[in-house]
Amino acid sequence: MTLKVYLSGEIHTDWREQITQGATGLDVVFSGPVTDHAASDDCGVAILGAEDNKFWHDRKGAQINAIRTRKGIAEADVVVVRFGEQYKQWNAAFDAGYAAALGKSLIILHGAEHAHALKEVDAAALAVATEPRQVVEILRYVLSGSLPA
Amino acid sequence: MTLKVYLSGEIHTDWREQITQGATGLDVVFSGPVTDHAASDDCGVAILGAEDNKFWHDRKGAQINAIRTRKGIAEADVVVVRFGEQYKQWNAAFDAGYAAALGKSLIILHGAEHAHALKEVDAAALAVATEPRQVVEILRYVLSGSLPA
Amino acid sequence: MTLKVYLSGEIHTDWREQITQGATGLDVVFSGPVTDHAASDDCGVAILGAEDNKFWHDRKGAQINAIRTRKGIAEADVVVVRFGEQYKQWNAAFDAGYAAALGKSLIILHGAEHAHALKEVDAAALAVATEPRQVVEILRYVLSGSLPA
Amino acid sequence: MTLKVYLSGEIHTDWREQITQGATGLDVVFSGPVTDHAASDDCGVAILGAEDNKFWHDRKGAQINAIRTRKGIAEADVVVVRFGEQYKQWNAAFDAGYAAALGKSLIILHGAEHAHALKEVDAAALAVATEPRQVVEILRYVLSGSLPA
Amino acid sequence: MTLKVYLSGEIHTDWREQITQGATGLDVVFSGPVTDHAASDDCGVAILGAEDNKFWHDRKGAQINAIRTRKGIAEADVVVVRFGEQYKQWNAAFDAGYAAALGKSLIILHGAEHAHALKEVDAAALAVATEPRQVVEILRYVLSGSLPA
Amino acid sequence: MTLKVYLSGEIHTDWREQITQGATGLDVVFSGPVTDHAASDDCGVAILGAEDNKFWHDRKGAQINAIRTRKGIAEADVVVVRFGEQYKQWNAAFDAGYAAALGKSLIILHGAEHAHALKEVDAAALAVATEPRQVVEILRYVLSGSLPA
Amino acid sequence: MTLKVYLSGEIHTDWREQITQGATGLDVVFSGPVTDHAASDDCGVAILGAEDNKFWHDRKGAQINAIRTRKGIAEADVVVVRFGEQYKQWNAAFDAGYAAALGKSLIILHGAEHAHALKEVDAAALAVATEPRQVVEILRYVLSGSLPA
Amino acid sequence: MTLKVYLSGEIHTDWREQITQGATGLDVVFSGPVTDHAASDDCGVAILGAEDNKFWHDRKGAQINAIRTRKGIAEADVVVVRFGEQYKQWNAAFDAGYAAALGKSLIILHGAEHAHALKEVDAAALAVATEPRQVVEILRYVLSGSLPA
Repeated sequence: MTLKVYLSGEIHTDWREQITQGATGLDVVFSGPVTDHAASDDCGVAILGAEDNKFWHDRKGAQINAIRTRKGIAEADVVVVRFGEQYKQWNAAFDAGYAAALGKSLIILHGAEHAHALKEVDAAALAVATEPRQVVEILRYVLSGSLPA
Repeated sequence: MTLKVYLSGEIHTDWREQITQGATGLDVVFSGPVTDHAASDDCGVAILGAEDNKFWHDRKGAQINAIRTRKGIAEADVVVVRFGEQYKQWNAAFDAGYAAALGKSLIILHGAEHAHALKEVDAAALAVATEPRQVVEILRYVLSGSLPA
Repeated sequence: MTLKVYLSGEIHTDWREQITQGATGLDVVFSGPVTDHAASDDCGVAILGAEDNKFWHDRKGAQINAIRTRKGIAEADVVVVRFGEQYKQWNAAFDAGYAAALGKSLIILHGAEHAHALKEVDAAALAVATEPRQVVEILRYVLSGSLPA
Repeated sequence: MTLKVYLSGEIHTDWREQITQGATGLDVVFSGPVTDHAASDDCGVAILGAEDNKFWHDRKGAQINAIRTRKGIAEADVVVVRFGEQYKQWNAAFDAGYAAALGKSLIILHGAEHAHALKEVDAAALAVATEPRQVVEILRYVLSGSLPA
Repeated sequence: MTLKVYLSGEIHTDWREQITQGATGLDVVFSGPVTDHAASDDCGVAILGAEDNKFWHDRKGAQINAIRTRKGIAEADVVVVRFGEQYKQWNAAFDAGYAAALGKSLIILHGAEHAHALKEVDAAALAVATEPRQVVEILRYVLSGSLPA
Repeated sequence: MTLKVYLSGEIHTDWREQITQGATGLDVVFSGPVTDHAASDDCGVAILGAEDNKFWHDRKGAQINAIRTRKGIAEADVVVVRFGEQYKQWNAAFDAGYAAALGKSLIILHGAEHAHALKEVDAAALAVATEPRQVVEILRYVLSGSLPA
Repeated sequence: MTLKVYLSGEIHTDWREQITQGATGLDVVFSGPVTDHAASDDCGVAILGAEDNKFWHDRKGAQINAIRTRKGIAEADVVVVRFGEQYKQWNAAFDAGYAAALGKSLIILHGAEHAHALKEVDAAALAVATEPRQVVEILRYVLSGSLPA
Repeated sequence: MTLKVYLSGEIHTDWREQITQGATGLDVVFSGPVTDHAASDDCGVAILGAEDNKFWHDRKGAQINAIRTRKGIAEADVVVVRFGEQYKQWNAAFDAGYAAALGKSLIILHGAEHAHALKEVDAAALAVATEPRQVVEILRYVLSGSLPA
């Protein structure tokens, strides 16, 4: 059994690396969005031409990013969504809702301080974790039945 | 043609009333979440019994609210999601993602200051408005072909 | 908003009556299986002819009952599944799984003594209640936002 | 043609081994739940933290197990559900209902003493067997057209 | 509960009338194909213009009839397919397969002499009847729980 | 049986009126796009604000029109697509493809001069007509079995 | 591009061999039912135990065969259905209807003498051929764009 | 991550070659229609026999081509639709609509002169490009996050 896992959300800490390195040796294929913030913001105008209006500048980029995001979520077995300490992170919550409607197994990853604000998101999840390590432990258990020592 | 419209998001201003009153006379059926903040937070424990742990207190409530939310979104033709000036509003973004994955026609309603943070959400929408009045005008046009004078 | 509610499971106590009477005045349409035990067991052979082999006697009946059950679950917004104190009640758990796979909002109703044995079923539900009264309170809240006094 | 077969239900006898060994040489990929009873019960709290309340202890575990179960059933061509002699086994019946709603080919495996109690489950199946050997024979026939000598 | 029932198959005996008259007073809405043989054969060329080639004459008619047939089956809860004593009746078997793939509740109606030839069709059905009266009895039982005296 | 019919395509001749008037007395509910060319082109900027760039002017309008178009097609039993003598009419062909993918019954209406250019579109249709009168005759036959005298 | 092709219908002539041999070198994966008539008829009782009643003897076999048939059709890109000169062949027409409802590309293969009786089946097909050789030519063209010399 | 990309539309310039050559080294699998105009027009009669009536000549060909087209679009992650300077190109717009209804990521490729006529098609797309080079840049960015220098 190969688990396909999409890692959505925060792009300013190394949580993705913690998970992918922690999962070394497990039969997991990871995917996720482009995490280069500048490239992600500007891909639309860089490829399709500049816009005077920032709104359309953003639109062009967001829609190109959606090609990758939608495919990643649609093909995933498990969607992990990380909420960090900064920013609005509405795209993370959007991805969580999108994944929930497709019936994906959701794991939400956030600090305790966000628990109340995320209660609707957490309520759609099969697991709510606070540490990337726990996500790795879930993936290992799901694949092998082994629990952390 | 009857339009079924679900009004998601902010519960602390009168935007829902502005839209429903503005749409008087149009063939629209509105639905939305329970907007009594206290009832919405406490419905789970009020009905199913108290919890020591706030996390499960919230879970019980969020899941009961999901009965209403899921039905409302699933049956809607149009889902309007309002982002206000306060709070994290992750449930609003979650609803937007959920509705997008179901192929619903999305209208996002927010002030210009949130445009960049909402670019992924806006990119999934068929209209981005700043005023409740514009939502009414869209509904009227969709139903009757009439534009504002 | 009309809620369509399917009442699955135990047929030897009056829990259905408690719920339907408690919900008087609410905009709910209830459905459920045939609850006449003898008719339910024998409908197949009574209509389509006797069988020497009890296995096929049961098969004929179960398949005719499935016409009603499948339609009831498929059209429901909410599926309530009651586990009583007696019998194997595998058909109740089957209905719960069937409803879960269709994305229905599940409410499971059972005594505390069955909590561990029903943990996988409960985990797929949006509410786990112990009393029919609580189901009525959930329906009332979902429809009106009103909590019990 | 490769058959993907999910083996659901009883975890206290060696029926899974009988089937997987019997199917040696056939083009079948088997999957199933974690069958270590203690790990399965405790995976939630072992990874995500202890709970005072046994109900939430169970919930956390059941939801993590659901990641594996849902993927296994969703990807299977054939779901075999075994009902043994002990316990309520409501999760087995739940899996059967879940698989039936997804249109999977169901094989139910149980002793004759459970036939009446399982009549609704059996009625959704393409085969009802009493011995693991028969499941192997079905898989061999489906793949090769060969019947037992 | 209203049952929507599509009556497919043989058009040369009065079995549809027997069922619709027998079901007088039941909450059933019946639909079915155009049963005027000549009109059904010639509708294509009568409306869209003559064809020299009988193959396209037939094609034009069959496709217009499909507008009605597909809608009838798609909206039905129950599809009854009658196989009579004459003709190839491949359209009846086609309808049965079409309905089965859509997950409709199938009732097959035929004489005992066709049982072996129809075994794959019957195996997809929830009931196999030999008399129109039995179909009425099934509908009555499904709606009311009442068995024939 | 009520037929829901969406009338897509050309907006510069009276073909819609010919069909809706011809169908007087039939159990048909018609829908279609906004056919006021200027309103359809400008609805986006009229409601949501002007754009300097014609491309985004058009985008805003097309997306608001999509709210109506998608609902109309999604709810239709039959989608009639008319290709006239002028313009590119790519939106008509787009609607035909959209409807085909949803499994709608398609009727294509065009003059003989467009037959070769429309062969892929026609090949997805259940009827190809040249006159609005023929569409009415198809609807009457589908509903009543009556052919033109 | 690999084409998955399911070959349904007649089992008494060598049409399957003609197609599979003719398609040597093409990127096609063929599947089909068990074509050993005796094994196909008796598989149910041979594996699951004898039945006194021929109806249930047939049912057991047909349901086991359905495991293979459903998987084959569900995974196919193209379903070829052959109607021969003998027998009722209702299972072939059933498969055609089943495949049509799943949106599969259908090719129907039969002699001219059956054209009128098969008009509804043919009308759901993308090609109607009379010779196995033509099916091979279609597959070659679809894969390579090459037409017969 | 492998991107499956279907290239629909214009067959008289080398835009497909520009894209496939530009994408050398990227993990992309391309597919598309048969681009030999004569073969595409005549495949039906060449394989299945001549027709006197050009309409049916075209129908036979278009339906065989649909076997390839439907599979290509159904399996694609991204559908690129090119509108050139000549012809009606209704099949291109049909493919765009078909792909949109299936939820595919659409990229539309056309010159500025067609922008207004294509506004409904463009509005369903995630990117609108004018040069094949831009399509390559989008694919590279989606796969690797790299933007053009």
